[in-house]
Amino acid sequence: MLFRQLFDPGSSTYTCLIADSNTKTALLIDPVLEQVERDLKLLDELGLSLQYCLETHIHADHITGTAKIRQATGCLGVVPEHAQASCADRFITNGETLQLDSISIEAIATPGHTDSHMTYRVNRDQIFTGDALLIRGCGRTDFQSGDAGVLFDSVTQHLFTLPDATLVYPAHDYRGQTVSTIGEEKHYNPRFVGRDRAQFIEFMANLNLPNPKKIMEAVPANEHCGNLGGNKTNTVSKDPALSKQG
Amino acid sequence: MLFRQLFDPGSSTYTCLIADSNTKTALLIDPVLEQVERDLKLLDELGLSLQYCLETHIHADHITGTAKIRQATGCLGVVPEHAQASCADRFITNGETLQLDSISIEAIATPGHTDSHMTYRVNRDQIFTGDALLIRGCGRTDFQSGDAGVLFDSVTQHLFTLPDATLVYPAHDYRGQTVSTIGEEKHYNPRFVGRDRAQFIEFMANLNLPNPKKIMEAVPANEHCGNLGGNKTNTVSKDPALSKQG
Repeated sequence: MLFRQLFDPGSSTYTCLIADSNTKTALLIDPVLEQVERDLKLLDELGLSLQYCLETHIHADHITGTAKIRQATGCLGVVPEHAQASCADRFITNGETLQLDSISIEAIATPGHTDSHMTYRVNRDQIFTGDALLIRGCGRTDFQSGDAGVLFDSVTQHLFTLPDATLVYPAHDYRGQTVSTIGEEKHYNPRFVGRDRAQFIEFMANLNLPNPKKIMEAVPANEHCGNLGGNKTNTVSKDPALSKQG
Repeated sequence: MLFRQLFDPGSSTYTCLIADSNTKTALLIDPVLEQVERDLKLLDELGLSLQYCLETHIHADHITGTAKIRQATGCLGVVPEHAQASCADRFITNGETLQLDSISIEAIATPGHTDSHMTYRVNRDQIFTGDALLIRGCGRTDFQSGDAGVLFDSVTQHLFTLPDATLVYPAHDYRGQTVSTIGEEKHYNPRFVGRDRAQFIEFMANLNLPNPKKIMEAVPANEHCGNLGGNKTNTVSKDPALSKQG
């Protein structure tokens, strides 16, 4: 498997490139509009054929690069089920597995930051946690149908129950960290350690964070996959690579 | 092997943490003064015993965290031979191998950005290139005894001759990239592709870059391993883990 973490300094977002080294098929998780040229150039240089752009959720802090990348490459935009995305080529549901040749990507519903947020588990040993679980942190829960109690359940019941060695790649980091593990986060994530569900809800309710700078433009744009002018009708045809598991 | 890339946004520097997962011994390459608390906390959480701080070179764009980390952990500060570092615990020479339990770190002289710059080759499949080779770029050569012709020779004769699959971790990136390979850089690094030695020298002479903001404080501080007040005498005692190769 070829793997590249790519950072957008403007929004502190990690986009992840995953590819089958043999067949050269690839997917991107959470691409950022401002970095599309960089990402397309890298795909070209590495000789990769992009099959999918996956969103962990509808972002409020940056506009997704999916529409622009889809236009350039013909890839499919994959969005969590129940997300308000009028333009998705495919919706992915909890427990479903997307197969990219030798690489399996399992969707694990982790709502709470938004109500339709997904974590993607790749080859069972690494997870792409979007804004559900950050390194020593977690996403906020005070807008976009966020719910602190639901996030607490997602993280403690569906992520912290994975093997300790599972690598954790979040969609954001603000302290220069690139990767963690489930074992580390269970022991050292200050949002969760020593807090029960009620205490977590209270803590999250008192964060008093300012809104993301781009929220007014990012959310409506991302509901159209980052296609500011477009309003493509939802096709939702079933992709054979998407197979229901469990 | 445990591996963590850690970024300092202020100077766009990557510090790398490498550890033997079994014995828990660790080293840091190019730590940054402003990030020492973060790095010490991570070492503590991961239960690691820091043995060495390695410098690829005397930096001009940030102050090294080595002195502060050495004070906190008792680790040894390892600096390339010929570097003007009055405080090094150990100097490492071209071809020498530092053994960190199961992990071997071979020093490869790659002067040009500075006259004493080293690349560190870890377990023969990844290299930490400091400012000699960046992702699709290279370090500047217009101060600190830099020499464009010497850098061209270092990169083309000593790095581009390594296997194509060798992973390249630079000390800086300004475009959100985290890793590359020798194969990629040979084919796509715009500083080297299509330029012979004379053309490279001419290109580098015409970059006309402003000086790094911190150069006036960083270089003298780094000549004392980042110990702004200190002036520890060079000990240069031979460490048994440093063995001359080839």
